[in-house]
Amino acid sequence: MQTETRKLLEDVKNGTVSVDDALLKLKAAPFEDLGFAKIDFHRPIRQGASEVIYGAGKTYEQILGIVRRMRAENEKSIMITRLSEETAVRLRSEDGFTYNPDARFGFFGSIPEPDGIGRIVVATGGTSDIPVAEEAALTAQCLSNDVLRLYDVGVSGLHRLLSHLDDIMSASVIIAIAGMEGALASVISGLADCPVIAVPTSVGYGASFGGLTALLSMLNSCAGGVSVVNIDNGFGAGYLASMINHMEAKS
Amino acid sequence: MQTETRKLLEDVKNGTVSVDDALLKLKAAPFEDLGFAKIDFHRPIRQGASEVIYGAGKTYEQILGIVRRMRAENEKSIMITRLSEETAVRLRSEDGFTYNPDARFGFFGSIPEPDGIGRIVVATGGTSDIPVAEEAALTAQCLSNDVLRLYDVGVSGLHRLLSHLDDIMSASVIIAIAGMEGALASVISGLADCPVIAVPTSVGYGASFGGLTALLSMLNSCAGGVSVVNIDNGFGAGYLASMINHMEAKS
Amino acid sequence: MQTETRKLLEDVKNGTVSVDDALLKLKAAPFEDLGFAKIDFHRPIRQGASEVIYGAGKTYEQILGIVRRMRAENEKSIMITRLSEETAVRLRSEDGFTYNPDARFGFFGSIPEPDGIGRIVVATGGTSDIPVAEEAALTAQCLSNDVLRLYDVGVSGLHRLLSHLDDIMSASVIIAIAGMEGALASVISGLADCPVIAVPTSVGYGASFGGLTALLSMLNSCAGGVSVVNIDNGFGAGYLASMINHMEAKS
Amino acid sequence: MQTETRKLLEDVKNGTVSVDDALLKLKAAPFEDLGFAKIDFHRPIRQGASEVIYGAGKTYEQILGIVRRMRAENEKSIMITRLSEETAVRLRSEDGFTYNPDARFGFFGSIPEPDGIGRIVVATGGTSDIPVAEEAALTAQCLSNDVLRLYDVGVSGLHRLLSHLDDIMSASVIIAIAGMEGALASVISGLADCPVIAVPTSVGYGASFGGLTALLSMLNSCAGGVSVVNIDNGFGAGYLASMINHMEAKS
Amino acid sequence: MQTETRKLLEDVKNGTVSVDDALLKLKAAPFEDLGFAKIDFHRPIRQGASEVIYGAGKTYEQILGIVRRMRAENEKSIMITRLSEETAVRLRSEDGFTYNPDARFGFFGSIPEPDGIGRIVVATGGTSDIPVAEEAALTAQCLSNDVLRLYDVGVSGLHRLLSHLDDIMSASVIIAIAGMEGALASVISGLADCPVIAVPTSVGYGASFGGLTALLSMLNSCAGGVSVVNIDNGFGAGYLASMINHMEAKS
Amino acid sequence: MQTETRKLLEDVKNGTVSVDDALLKLKAAPFEDLGFAKIDFHRPIRQGASEVIYGAGKTYEQILGIVRRMRAENEKSIMITRLSEETAVRLRSEDGFTYNPDARFGFFGSIPEPDGIGRIVVATGGTSDIPVAEEAALTAQCLSNDVLRLYDVGVSGLHRLLSHLDDIMSASVIIAIAGMEGALASVISGLADCPVIAVPTSVGYGASFGGLTALLSMLNSCAGGVSVVNIDNGFGAGYLASMINHMEAKS
Amino acid sequence: MQTETRKLLEDVKNGTVSVDDALLKLKAAPFEDLGFAKIDFHRPIRQGASEVIYGAGKTYEQILGIVRRMRAENEKSIMITRLSEETAVRLRSEDGFTYNPDARFGFFGSIPEPDGIGRIVVATGGTSDIPVAEEAALTAQCLSNDVLRLYDVGVSGLHRLLSHLDDIMSASVIIAIAGMEGALASVISGLADCPVIAVPTSVGYGASFGGLTALLSMLNSCAGGVSVVNIDNGFGAGYLASMINHMEAKS
Amino acid sequence: MQTETRKLLEDVKNGTVSVDDALLKLKAAPFEDLGFAKIDFHRPIRQGASEVIYGAGKTYEQILGIVRRMRAENEKSIMITRLSEETAVRLRSEDGFTYNPDARFGFFGSIPEPDGIGRIVVATGGTSDIPVAEEAALTAQCLSNDVLRLYDVGVSGLHRLLSHLDDIMSASVIIAIAGMEGALASVISGLADCPVIAVPTSVGYGASFGGLTALLSMLNSCAGGVSVVNIDNGFGAGYLASMINHMEAKS
Repeated sequence: MQTETRKLLEDVKNGTVSVDDALLKLKAAPFEDLGFAKIDFHRPIRQGASEVIYGAGKTYEQILGIVRRMRAENEKSIMITRLSEETAVRLRSEDGFTYNPDARFGFFGSIPEPDGIGRIVVATGGTSDIPVAEEAALTAQCLSNDVLRLYDVGVSGLHRLLSHLDDIMSASVIIAIAGMEGALASVISGLADCPVIAVPTSVGYGASFGGLTALLSMLNSCAGGVSVVNIDNGFGAGYLASMINHMEAKS
Repeated sequence: MQTETRKLLEDVKNGTVSVDDALLKLKAAPFEDLGFAKIDFHRPIRQGASEVIYGAGKTYEQILGIVRRMRAENEKSIMITRLSEETAVRLRSEDGFTYNPDARFGFFGSIPEPDGIGRIVVATGGTSDIPVAEEAALTAQCLSNDVLRLYDVGVSGLHRLLSHLDDIMSASVIIAIAGMEGALASVISGLADCPVIAVPTSVGYGASFGGLTALLSMLNSCAGGVSVVNIDNGFGAGYLASMINHMEAKS
Repeated sequence: MQTETRKLLEDVKNGTVSVDDALLKLKAAPFEDLGFAKIDFHRPIRQGASEVIYGAGKTYEQILGIVRRMRAENEKSIMITRLSEETAVRLRSEDGFTYNPDARFGFFGSIPEPDGIGRIVVATGGTSDIPVAEEAALTAQCLSNDVLRLYDVGVSGLHRLLSHLDDIMSASVIIAIAGMEGALASVISGLADCPVIAVPTSVGYGASFGGLTALLSMLNSCAGGVSVVNIDNGFGAGYLASMINHMEAKS
Repeated sequence: MQTETRKLLEDVKNGTVSVDDALLKLKAAPFEDLGFAKIDFHRPIRQGASEVIYGAGKTYEQILGIVRRMRAENEKSIMITRLSEETAVRLRSEDGFTYNPDARFGFFGSIPEPDGIGRIVVATGGTSDIPVAEEAALTAQCLSNDVLRLYDVGVSGLHRLLSHLDDIMSASVIIAIAGMEGALASVISGLADCPVIAVPTSVGYGASFGGLTALLSMLNSCAGGVSVVNIDNGFGAGYLASMINHMEAKS
Repeated sequence: MQTETRKLLEDVKNGTVSVDDALLKLKAAPFEDLGFAKIDFHRPIRQGASEVIYGAGKTYEQILGIVRRMRAENEKSIMITRLSEETAVRLRSEDGFTYNPDARFGFFGSIPEPDGIGRIVVATGGTSDIPVAEEAALTAQCLSNDVLRLYDVGVSGLHRLLSHLDDIMSASVIIAIAGMEGALASVISGLADCPVIAVPTSVGYGASFGGLTALLSMLNSCAGGVSVVNIDNGFGAGYLASMINHMEAKS
Repeated sequence: MQTETRKLLEDVKNGTVSVDDALLKLKAAPFEDLGFAKIDFHRPIRQGASEVIYGAGKTYEQILGIVRRMRAENEKSIMITRLSEETAVRLRSEDGFTYNPDARFGFFGSIPEPDGIGRIVVATGGTSDIPVAEEAALTAQCLSNDVLRLYDVGVSGLHRLLSHLDDIMSASVIIAIAGMEGALASVISGLADCPVIAVPTSVGYGASFGGLTALLSMLNSCAGGVSVVNIDNGFGAGYLASMINHMEAKS
Repeated sequence: MQTETRKLLEDVKNGTVSVDDALLKLKAAPFEDLGFAKIDFHRPIRQGASEVIYGAGKTYEQILGIVRRMRAENEKSIMITRLSEETAVRLRSEDGFTYNPDARFGFFGSIPEPDGIGRIVVATGGTSDIPVAEEAALTAQCLSNDVLRLYDVGVSGLHRLLSHLDDIMSASVIIAIAGMEGALASVISGLADCPVIAVPTSVGYGASFGGLTALLSMLNSCAGGVSVVNIDNGFGAGYLASMINHMEAKS
Repeated sequence: MQTETRKLLEDVKNGTVSVDDALLKLKAAPFEDLGFAKIDFHRPIRQGASEVIYGAGKTYEQILGIVRRMRAENEKSIMITRLSEETAVRLRSEDGFTYNPDARFGFFGSIPEPDGIGRIVVATGGTSDIPVAEEAALTAQCLSNDVLRLYDVGVSGLHRLLSHLDDIMSASVIIAIAGMEGALASVISGLADCPVIAVPTSVGYGASFGGLTALLSMLNSCAGGVSVVNIDNGFGAGYLASMINHMEAKS
């Protein structure tokens, strides 16, 4: 690495590049070679060889173009979030494409083997939260995680949640997804002994204010180990959960 | 009842009052005798012979004046809410006065015997919610209710709440009091089979926004049987709980 | 009750089950047998044998499936709230189905005889609040309550409300439903001597903010005995009113 | 009127002022003489010869200075709103000064005779709203209006309000002042047949949000003839009520 | 007036009605005869013989029914606000019907002669505010007021407003209608010497928040004589302006 | 200039106009001639000879009418913002018309030569912000500015932004356009040494609240030199940037 | 573990406890022994043997009592958050007590050796955020983490942040703490390759709204791997960071 | 400039530094020498040789330390904003220190000669806005600008503002400062032909919500050329105004 800068310095040493020209070159492009450019390229390697495209607002042609360029660069697998069904239908003919319409989640490649520390539990308060949950679960699976889905275990029927106590207590990371009053995150983090990522959803009506109530509620969770992502941000939760589930020492 | 109007009509019949004078009298005071005035006076009888004074912003002299007038009118017991400790100290010399400084709740008389349908459970999420809870509990007790206090049973330590499952399932009415994320109301109403009155408290910091988060969360409770009163309104919850716990047929 | 756990202990006593196996069994399923599972099943018995399905977002097939399973389990009557007209039309061929399009409320079975303590009054501020009111009224009727509808008695024409003073003063529970400024709940609870359940509606424009103004207004009601449910939550109000109207001692 | 401009034009006609000088003079001071300056000076004449000083944040010396300058300009009476008690004490030695500490309202001069169209009714929901009400009532009185105070006639005890029905129905303008849920304005405007100026107050706690709830509630009043001023703005309401009560044709 | 109650009392006096029957009758219908019922019926007489129907959410059949009943009761003119174009088209065949599609305002009858104290000025900040302004202006005209329209005189081009200074200074009442930042109300009330009714509109984008910004801005107007109605409430402003413009002494 | 007033004064001097008539004329139209009217007409001259029409809510006929009148008055170039594609299609036949559908920006005339102090940089956080950015960029170009577009340089990939450091540090004015968390404005103003105009966009979901989060974030920028315009207000930013980029001494 | 239940079952087997008594005992205390009670007691073992007391609102006597009981139960180290200086002074005489007044953080015991996966970086935008940062950093240290503090590296002086690029890129977990516009979290997560816990602070004025702006901004971070805790919740961030930094497989 | 990097490259060329060592050195400190570090140091030169200290929350000792270090580095003049009077009193003994208590603004050095393009006008709506205005005005003066103060020219007395029309029309930049409804910014930008920086202030009560109303109002200004800074941010406005008033081409 840093071979370009090394080359430049060697050229200065050898006299093939003048000090002034080297100075100019260093100033003009300091970020490509001195560590920054790696940001984009070393991630796929560590996160399970998956890249992601945010599909909302992109045309079929734009998405196809990005996919083809990525594949040319040898990306083994590609996630597409917030992908409309219309566009997904047109992508079907592409090699290795699968689509989950609930989660509006497309995927190129095959789900990799889980290689994380433990299991990620994705829990929802109700059945209406499932699209967001599927986005989280599929994201985590595409990033090489073992995922367990516990759907419709909201606090108004506490026994449903408690009958999965073992799953909750043995989880590595839990993604707690709920709309309405968002109490699920607090209850789960009171039972669990691992990081809990809370995802408020826009499910509800009236004073749920499009997810604001669940969001505020989750931020106020008095149980330790809870943190919150944006309303309906299943992808963000799945991505962060995978990051935590792949924690390891950096030399 | 309505004896004054009856008397007036009889006077008209007897000729001791002219039609014009009767007309004037009926128009001038139609609300005292025709049903409205009962609103103020029949309540004490049905609610356990207690009257209430809202103490906030009233001086010692004002409160004392109201108390003495009420006692002259034979009110057996009088509650004073939001009563400052300074004023309470000066009221101590009055006959039969007791004061709870946490709840800022004063009382003239003796706690009446419970005569409600069942037991009112007052539960709080944390220890900081206790002042509001005591206001609710004392109000209910002064209105002739059997009250059980379950404090600090918040959802971040669910086993504490669950160890009181029998109390919750056998309650007549439950007052669920919590700040922060307010999840207690949802969890309790998922376990209980009776009306749950949720009281958000201003306990918390940051995104608790002085109780707004707990308030919104409680309004969104997806469990049935929950309704909500104003932030920190312990009196209102205790009063309503007593009303429900004394339900009976009106002939 | 608790026969399974009793059986298990007897097996331990008899030596037919080892202590280790018993320990495992207790841990694996503590909630089915120790009191929790009853939560779901004893409710229908006490609330008038009606079960409820939240219809919003469910397909015709899903609803039909749930209905058939419930009927197989001998549920005598089933309410479906927020049921779209399209789905209702397709359910018409089912036995014993009726539908109220205003309230988007479907019902399987026949309205049971009232058996509550007294009468539930459902009052609205305007004619636009009627859909929410009908949801509340039909819910209460399906749960065996005598219901009186007082529609369009808002405070801008106070005499309309006052001409029903007797109904208000003799009610067992009142559901006060209003949008705009939501003053109806305060006025009614000032006149009545029973619990008042306030339902803000999203009726209005401009600074009504989709029901928020009515919600806040109702929470601030200075009259005693008022509590509030979520915006447009007619079902929740009807369910709670029925609960209160069926209060009785638990042995 | 406009004598200066007339004089200037006559000077131009007479040749004593050149066209260029006149042009300059017209441009430099177009607002003093061409109608604008009257804005400040004809108001006292029509509004009852009272001028107003906003006392908040002004020192004793500043206020005294303004008062003395006004008196030198022959202002017969001067109102000072939001005047602190400390400053008021120091103003006592001034001639003709009176002070109402509740309303934090000072006045130089004597209350003028009422000369409006009819009577202004100032009504409050509770006793805590009285300071704002007194500011409104004193303002109206200082501007030559007959004022009737109806305090503590809130909607939670409707009979108190209804017993003043004659006063309400015969009022010329009504100022309805309330905190908490602010329902008073709606109820009064449903009973009255005159303009109702609603003043939300910051009285309340919890979800009253410093007067915001009353404000929103009043803006949503479904009764005709209601308009709203800022929270706690007693002066503005009194001033506007006087304006309306002195309506007359402008030739 | 009160002839029914007088008759009843005379019957009691004459012995044709017993005291008990009279008592019952007085209780059953206290509001029809003792002053309340007049509320609905004396308004048309004083306000220019126009009645109003709120058209939003009403079907053609409902509106037609109300109109026909009113006409049978001799209402000379009827306003219909928020009337959809579809319904208006179907009403065209009715006698004496006119419709303004911008304001969504329908009218039965002919515009009456102005008989108010002076002239009502309706001013808007921009052209997009005109529909709300027309609702206000037509309402005021139907209630017998002389109306002057000053449209698109917003503060970003102050000279347009100032060129109408005479109109503003001679107005009896001004309705100031603006969206965006709502500054028009403050500027006009700084120039005028009469009541200013401010109407925020939902015109704008981004941080105008559907009229909330204009609403808050208008409530904070530091000029005297301004009061505010709900967002887009042109009818309310026109109705109140007419009320003020018809102020007269009540005997 | 001011020739009309000069003429009037000369007529007074000459006796052809009486003092009274002159007085009336001065009062009736003081703003056309005494400085105000210039506001509308000297702007085009200084801002690059472009006039603007706000296209939202205007019909094809209205826009065409305004355009033709302006062209008759010799406006060399005309911008139309928020112009729908439907209307743009119909304007195509007009001479010299171009249209950018992304920015919904129409233009009559040819882009003038840049004549500002330096270069305006238009930067966006993401690709979804480009429509707003194009409105800003095209506005600035039509007002004779050299514009550099730096799109999709959001802070989540900081190296992309930093690789344009020279452009940022040499800019005359920077328009920073971002939705979501709006951090771009802070980061850019920390790097740049020139005025930064921040434009929040409504891009985002959940807790972006239609641009409110970006707006608040930008207002709190702790870096100096940042100011903010309304959400999505690309035109306002481009106009202000041009104003700043054409700063020069006024004699 | 579960020795009590095992003992009970053995007693049943042995006949020393009857089935009925065992049943009662299991029902009365199902949560202490069947898995729940472990929640409280196994945490210290895994999290570095530290327990925490929330000091806000607790008296010296209360805190001392809790501390002594914990120490009696062999807790090696105890954290006290939000501990007032007054109380801290009185705790000084206790054995092994240290106090950080900035963070209002007390500690009994000695900071344990770091044993996490890697290093936790605690970064702040400004110097005013340091108290919250110290609470986070001390919490993490007391839970056996290696902590690096990077204070005052806000985005308005980006070079300060970038000069620590190596620290950021090699961190195991980063806690990003900022008030005002909260952009720090986005910028850091764009540079880092690890979980970022964002802590909004109440630092700021005006439109920072007590931390709300930073909170919303952080929730909208478009960079992956960011999650958010409550405003000023340094302890929560430190606790969660430690949890993530001690991730390991559960058998 | 960049002498250190040049030196390093020359050392590489000369062989006194190895390529590896140079590479390490470049990576370790890329921001000090490659352009970033200049950010801090070239600003004083262009902005009039003044540096600024944000005084809020800093102790006397901290401020004194910073001042002395700056002076040692030859800063000719230093501004201190939000400086408490207590600290200012103790700084008096320092050489060349002046203090404005209204603006809480301290200054070391002497006000430099104006050298900007034109004059900056600082206008306020009321007298209560003056502290913010003085912070803006003094900041601009310390940065070498000619400043004209127009205080108390709010829109409720429009003639006061209009009598300064020449000042407004000839300004180079205008800072419009107002609380309450914030209309000043719109009115001024409608009159002026230069950039207007709007500063909302927290002056007001009730629905001014601590400056939020003025802030929103200013953001919605429909006049071109307006941008907004944070509530009460006088320094930010003065700094930006100076930046604009010193615009010049960068070679």
